[in-house]
Amino acid sequence: MSLPFKYDQVAVGEFGGSTSSSVDFDRARVAILPIPLDRTTSYVSGTRNGPHEILVASSHMELWDEETGTEIHSIGIATLPEMELPFASMDEVVCEIRRVVAEIVSRGKFPMVLGGEHSITPAVVAALAAKHPGLSVLQLDAHADLRESFMGTPHSHACAMRRSAEFAPLTQVAIRSLSAEEAAAVPSLPTKIFYDYNMRSDPAWMDRVVDSLSDTVYISIDVDGLDPAIMPATGTPEPGGLSWHEALTLLRKVIENRTVVGCDIVELSPMGGNVAPNFLCAKLVYKILSYRFGREL
Amino acid sequence: MSLPFKYDQVAVGEFGGSTSSSVDFDRARVAILPIPLDRTTSYVSGTRNGPHEILVASSHMELWDEETGTEIHSIGIATLPEMELPFASMDEVVCEIRRVVAEIVSRGKFPMVLGGEHSITPAVVAALAAKHPGLSVLQLDAHADLRESFMGTPHSHACAMRRSAEFAPLTQVAIRSLSAEEAAAVPSLPTKIFYDYNMRSDPAWMDRVVDSLSDTVYISIDVDGLDPAIMPATGTPEPGGLSWHEALTLLRKVIENRTVVGCDIVELSPMGGNVAPNFLCAKLVYKILSYRFGREL
Amino acid sequence: MSLPFKYDQVAVGEFGGSTSSSVDFDRARVAILPIPLDRTTSYVSGTRNGPHEILVASSHMELWDEETGTEIHSIGIATLPEMELPFASMDEVVCEIRRVVAEIVSRGKFPMVLGGEHSITPAVVAALAAKHPGLSVLQLDAHADLRESFMGTPHSHACAMRRSAEFAPLTQVAIRSLSAEEAAAVPSLPTKIFYDYNMRSDPAWMDRVVDSLSDTVYISIDVDGLDPAIMPATGTPEPGGLSWHEALTLLRKVIENRTVVGCDIVELSPMGGNVAPNFLCAKLVYKILSYRFGREL
Amino acid sequence: MSLPFKYDQVAVGEFGGSTSSSVDFDRARVAILPIPLDRTTSYVSGTRNGPHEILVASSHMELWDEETGTEIHSIGIATLPEMELPFASMDEVVCEIRRVVAEIVSRGKFPMVLGGEHSITPAVVAALAAKHPGLSVLQLDAHADLRESFMGTPHSHACAMRRSAEFAPLTQVAIRSLSAEEAAAVPSLPTKIFYDYNMRSDPAWMDRVVDSLSDTVYISIDVDGLDPAIMPATGTPEPGGLSWHEALTLLRKVIENRTVVGCDIVELSPMGGNVAPNFLCAKLVYKILSYRFGREL
Amino acid sequence: MSLPFKYDQVAVGEFGGSTSSSVDFDRARVAILPIPLDRTTSYVSGTRNGPHEILVASSHMELWDEETGTEIHSIGIATLPEMELPFASMDEVVCEIRRVVAEIVSRGKFPMVLGGEHSITPAVVAALAAKHPGLSVLQLDAHADLRESFMGTPHSHACAMRRSAEFAPLTQVAIRSLSAEEAAAVPSLPTKIFYDYNMRSDPAWMDRVVDSLSDTVYISIDVDGLDPAIMPATGTPEPGGLSWHEALTLLRKVIENRTVVGCDIVELSPMGGNVAPNFLCAKLVYKILSYRFGREL
Amino acid sequence: MSLPFKYDQVAVGEFGGSTSSSVDFDRARVAILPIPLDRTTSYVSGTRNGPHEILVASSHMELWDEETGTEIHSIGIATLPEMELPFASMDEVVCEIRRVVAEIVSRGKFPMVLGGEHSITPAVVAALAAKHPGLSVLQLDAHADLRESFMGTPHSHACAMRRSAEFAPLTQVAIRSLSAEEAAAVPSLPTKIFYDYNMRSDPAWMDRVVDSLSDTVYISIDVDGLDPAIMPATGTPEPGGLSWHEALTLLRKVIENRTVVGCDIVELSPMGGNVAPNFLCAKLVYKILSYRFGREL
Repeated sequence: MSLPFKYDQVAVGEFGGSTSSSVDFDRARVAILPIPLDRTTSYVSGTRNGPHEILVASSHMELWDEETGTEIHSIGIATLPEMELPFASMDEVVCEIRRVVAEIVSRGKFPMVLGGEHSITPAVVAALAAKHPGLSVLQLDAHADLRESFMGTPHSHACAMRRSAEFAPLTQVAIRSLSAEEAAAVPSLPTKIFYDYNMRSDPAWMDRVVDSLSDTVYISIDVDGLDPAIMPATGTPEPGGLSWHEALTLLRKVIENRTVVGCDIVELSPMGGNVAPNFLCAKLVYKILSYRFGREL
Repeated sequence: MSLPFKYDQVAVGEFGGSTSSSVDFDRARVAILPIPLDRTTSYVSGTRNGPHEILVASSHMELWDEETGTEIHSIGIATLPEMELPFASMDEVVCEIRRVVAEIVSRGKFPMVLGGEHSITPAVVAALAAKHPGLSVLQLDAHADLRESFMGTPHSHACAMRRSAEFAPLTQVAIRSLSAEEAAAVPSLPTKIFYDYNMRSDPAWMDRVVDSLSDTVYISIDVDGLDPAIMPATGTPEPGGLSWHEALTLLRKVIENRTVVGCDIVELSPMGGNVAPNFLCAKLVYKILSYRFGREL
Repeated sequence: MSLPFKYDQVAVGEFGGSTSSSVDFDRARVAILPIPLDRTTSYVSGTRNGPHEILVASSHMELWDEETGTEIHSIGIATLPEMELPFASMDEVVCEIRRVVAEIVSRGKFPMVLGGEHSITPAVVAALAAKHPGLSVLQLDAHADLRESFMGTPHSHACAMRRSAEFAPLTQVAIRSLSAEEAAAVPSLPTKIFYDYNMRSDPAWMDRVVDSLSDTVYISIDVDGLDPAIMPATGTPEPGGLSWHEALTLLRKVIENRTVVGCDIVELSPMGGNVAPNFLCAKLVYKILSYRFGREL
Repeated sequence: MSLPFKYDQVAVGEFGGSTSSSVDFDRARVAILPIPLDRTTSYVSGTRNGPHEILVASSHMELWDEETGTEIHSIGIATLPEMELPFASMDEVVCEIRRVVAEIVSRGKFPMVLGGEHSITPAVVAALAAKHPGLSVLQLDAHADLRESFMGTPHSHACAMRRSAEFAPLTQVAIRSLSAEEAAAVPSLPTKIFYDYNMRSDPAWMDRVVDSLSDTVYISIDVDGLDPAIMPATGTPEPGGLSWHEALTLLRKVIENRTVVGCDIVELSPMGGNVAPNFLCAKLVYKILSYRFGREL
Repeated sequence: MSLPFKYDQVAVGEFGGSTSSSVDFDRARVAILPIPLDRTTSYVSGTRNGPHEILVASSHMELWDEETGTEIHSIGIATLPEMELPFASMDEVVCEIRRVVAEIVSRGKFPMVLGGEHSITPAVVAALAAKHPGLSVLQLDAHADLRESFMGTPHSHACAMRRSAEFAPLTQVAIRSLSAEEAAAVPSLPTKIFYDYNMRSDPAWMDRVVDSLSDTVYISIDVDGLDPAIMPATGTPEPGGLSWHEALTLLRKVIENRTVVGCDIVELSPMGGNVAPNFLCAKLVYKILSYRFGREL
Repeated sequence: MSLPFKYDQVAVGEFGGSTSSSVDFDRARVAILPIPLDRTTSYVSGTRNGPHEILVASSHMELWDEETGTEIHSIGIATLPEMELPFASMDEVVCEIRRVVAEIVSRGKFPMVLGGEHSITPAVVAALAAKHPGLSVLQLDAHADLRESFMGTPHSHACAMRRSAEFAPLTQVAIRSLSAEEAAAVPSLPTKIFYDYNMRSDPAWMDRVVDSLSDTVYISIDVDGLDPAIMPATGTPEPGGLSWHEALTLLRKVIENRTVVGCDIVELSPMGGNVAPNFLCAKLVYKILSYRFGREL
């Protein structure tokens, strides 16, 4: 909004929160796209509030990253408005997300998607796979999400990666919950699973994750892939999972050895009275962007 | 479960909690039917937990009612298991709820339905209207829920009473939130609205509510019809609404002057750390049953 | 932000939440100004989050008001960005708030200020009193806030109305907490106090409140003036206070009989897990604007 | 603790919190006795924390009372240390509480007891009845607590008033939960019950409460006697009950017309994140003391 | 309850939640016995809700275990109703628990006990030791619980393992809190303690735990033996303790090398708004049963 | 308070909670000084409640330490009353804290300071540096806190260590958040930073921390230096940080190899419903005192 007078402002809906660091979409290198998809009837809680709380948390962080020695805002980060998705059918939702992400990608921006339910991922993968033939997907998650359909729909969060695998092969990390049906289907699906219970038995497991990926990679982070100790704020928190240090080390290794062309962070369901999980997600965005674009500064 | 040995037990899923008071379905006068419909992806919170928390709270209540001087369990109250509704389309959900309620009603039981979202109500009304021609509906609610469709579906909670009105005329009490579209539609719909902002301006307003109802009545209680002071545990808590005393007085008056043939209590979304709203709902069930069946004892 | 492509969006920081209803500042009749003043070291909780949570809640409300039969957004409501107040001294903070409010007022907009601490009120009153000689102030509050200074500063929230009284006489309603020092000072201050413990002993007490006010009125609502039953989300919740019905009736009466030229709602300190207080504040804004500007539609 | 140097201090465990207002026991008119009886295995929550949280809240209140125009601390209020009750049998606990209260009473102090479970009340009543023949008890409570025994012990909170009635006749107000067994026993017990569902049907009901009491009165306030809207922080919050205004009016009337010789406030179970109930209890103590001793100033 | 009509149901009180997987007691290999012993006066929170919340969480888990490649429900898991323990004396409680567990064991079922307070353990151990001479006990716990008596009773949770040691020798793991009195008694008691502060100094510490156990083992898991990072939901959360990975590795090793004949999980005190601890306990039950019985499939 | 009669008491405001272990200031070796500095307007939450909750938690701990085999209370621990700091300017606050700590130190007591905001640290360091020339400071913290000024004041928590460095050189451990401005200033400041992202790359990193310290050391622990998994209860919880085991190992090593002359634990902001962080802080105090003074027993 243009005002006929000036004052210092807080930009509530922008990553980093500081007006000085926000840029026009045209000059941005990164586009943060909030997709608060959450089919509940209440506004009280749930993944619907995830994107917003990540943005709020981001405004309380230092803009400088001591690990890479960079201030990643200088590459240009544009925070888009939250998508509104008042459609009855998930088919329409999927189409619209795919269209919007395609628009972003066609203009050369790196899409950093903030969910919302995991069911948004296939649409994003579809848009990126169309742009980047040979794309592969790295998924951090507690759940395989490989059901053919769930509760009668192929668009459930429980099918998110089965749908994504129709567009690009998967590498699934920290998996520790799947059904017998999914387990039976795995051998016939284009996926490589690193199960949480034994993936660390090989000291070089992170290298094997990298090796399993093609040159061009999309990263999908379901926050329940992290240890509930640091991420209790999600719908079905499974014990086990990645520590903060493991997650960062793996992400850095993948980004340094492959070309990462997009990312999503989904399934944060903010808790009343505990902001640590929101803060962690905001920092995760910063870290991924610093690893990915810090070398360009 | 039949055990080859005996011990004192707590019946977790039964209204009142005490085994001695539970009865076979066949000998029951009242059937409590939990319908935890809630289309969220998380098990953390939401209306899905409503029926269960009402049953838990009911086990901490005295079974005797000092107002009517009766112990209502002696009429026979059977608590049915929670309905499981893993259907993709709301059409199927609606059909199944209608079928199950029709089964209950056909056997002469009084259905006391515990929700779950308000979108379960039309199916219950349909089943009862088929049995009781000339049925009317008394709705306690903050919201008119009279939209023709919402987010592309005619089965949304925001359309619950528009759908119900296709089976029976409505009397809507404590309404304090509706859209311009709904307001425009009201004159052409079979409904009489008592708006919260002015319904108490006539000291005889409760009598007018009774007068507006036909001989046979179904009662649908969306808990947000109550004051958020006593009922904060709901998705969109609107200031204003009925006090505990007002709700009981109105319900008693209706039950004493009309034949009430069924009831639902919906939209309780239990809060962590505050059991008072759950307890209130359990007591509301007790009170309605005491008013309705106490005279038969 | 102008985007080279379109999609349906949610406007996170705007009152009512719907993009279609937002207007340019120049064409707005009302300017909502969020001032999240809160001198804490933590971002977890506190009045700092008040303005934001009111705006979030407002996006879940119906835009139509059944009491006045109007949709108040059509008068033009512009939501300004949150003021950033990184000043060391409260003197500077006060000056800046006064300057910004004066800018708004000089352009003929009605300022609806969302706090933040009560200590923002004197600056707003000062700006309005400069524009409207003869202004009086109606304050809804549990606390008199009439200390000459508190903890060494004359700008504390505990001095907010003592400072305001330097610019305009006060009418203080629902007061139920003050110090012996304040009580001793009252007779010499330009204030009329309606104490909560006895203000309702005269059935015409609301008329007496109106009579005590001059033609032109500013309204300052400390949310702790309301009953903690409906407003537990504040720093020092005092038992007693106004019910929702009383607050609306009083506000409507004042607005219909006087010219209200500005308003603030302060001291909301959002609670984790209970959105009812946030929702109430959003509705209060809607109601005041409907009462004030509904007749212009 | 005597220190060889001075600094301004906050007295954490004293009512009112301000060191200047604390007095030696010998010069005090009122002795506040915290009895955190709570037989749980956890330190997380429960009535055990009730006395402490009331004292903490009391330090955030104004010391002046606008209703009586007095500052009640000047009569001398001594806050005793919390009783430690590491006894296996409730018999011993009861004896020790009775002994300590007798010591307080024998020195002419007014005992204001802060619980803890309601099961502490009979011991306090016993001590006072021994000192004041003809004593009667006014109880504000949701539950009759008239069971002969509960879970095998006569000392349960559910038997608190049956035990108390062995020492002094009762007047029970706001009752809205009792068992069939208790209801059957009432006619033979020395008690007059004012049931919540109909006690307000007589406009002079408060006078009838006063009339039912003897000249010398002990007041026992189970906080669940209050409306859960203002008092959700208790173990079994029953809908209905006294408003803040009703409670104060009744207490003032009783204190002005009878000689109140002691009081307890029990069953506060503090909630995380909502201090309003704690604050209400602290204010209740202030109000009772102001009504009782304000006339002596 | 047998119904004259059918619908899909959720079995609220059964482990795994799915009706299809529940079995008759007679055909079950495992009997899950909920013992919600908790001597509090409130129904709000505490270990009383532990068993129930574990069962609720279990219904949101996948039934398949990727580590053992089995679906453990096929062995037959019967969930018994919650024991009701309305006895005044702990002597009676202990007798009744011992009797019920003996009934289960005498029919060849594996008892998986869900607490409730730790004070239920000695009764379970007694029943198992009578059946299995030479039994030893593996305890995961923060506290030694070796007091001779506590608060005047030998049945306190603080004495749970002192009592258990009267029936079978102990191996205590992750201990990090005990009194000087307990420390002095340790040398004369049949126990081997692995203190949390140094137990990991030997890389083969888990083997030493196994070596310390006899052929037949009972496992008692006080959830506070786990790190509060993953288990904050307990009465006295002590920093330090076992990680999820450590707990599983140790349990698997013990189960593979000894004959485990029963197990309890106690002291879960569910928190409002954070289901992760409940989920962890449900998963722990699944894992133990998969380790124990997966080889039989 | 001296009473004319005796009973067993709980000492609410004393470390360890047990009266028998409290000592006169003169005979104490350690003085625990609570400084609840927190410039908020609310009493609901924040660092203001930190010292108190640590003391409450301490009363639920065993007094014996199994690691050192000592009961540290026998050295004499005096808990001083909370400082009251009702000053307008931080200059005055800083002077008063410095004066009080100097009084403690001049009498040969070890000051264990419980905050409150980190902005109290420079005053404590100043008092100790005056007594101990050559003092160095070990800081555990997520944030460097090295800003020259913040929000217009040099006394902000964001400047705490910049101010402290004016009195003694720093070693900063677990740092993972600082601004570009601070990073630029580091080379010219008397500080050695161990960044969280790489400090563990040298297996001897703890030795290097010790080596960086002079003979006489003050320890300042901002609780956000710990992993949010175990310490979510702080204003800006940064992912990463020290585990419980790392913190204890480092502290023991420092205390065994240097002369530690004082300590503070700051920035605990207690959460409703989760006592684990409070408990951790209490245990941290016990552990530090046991390491420091256990050898004297």
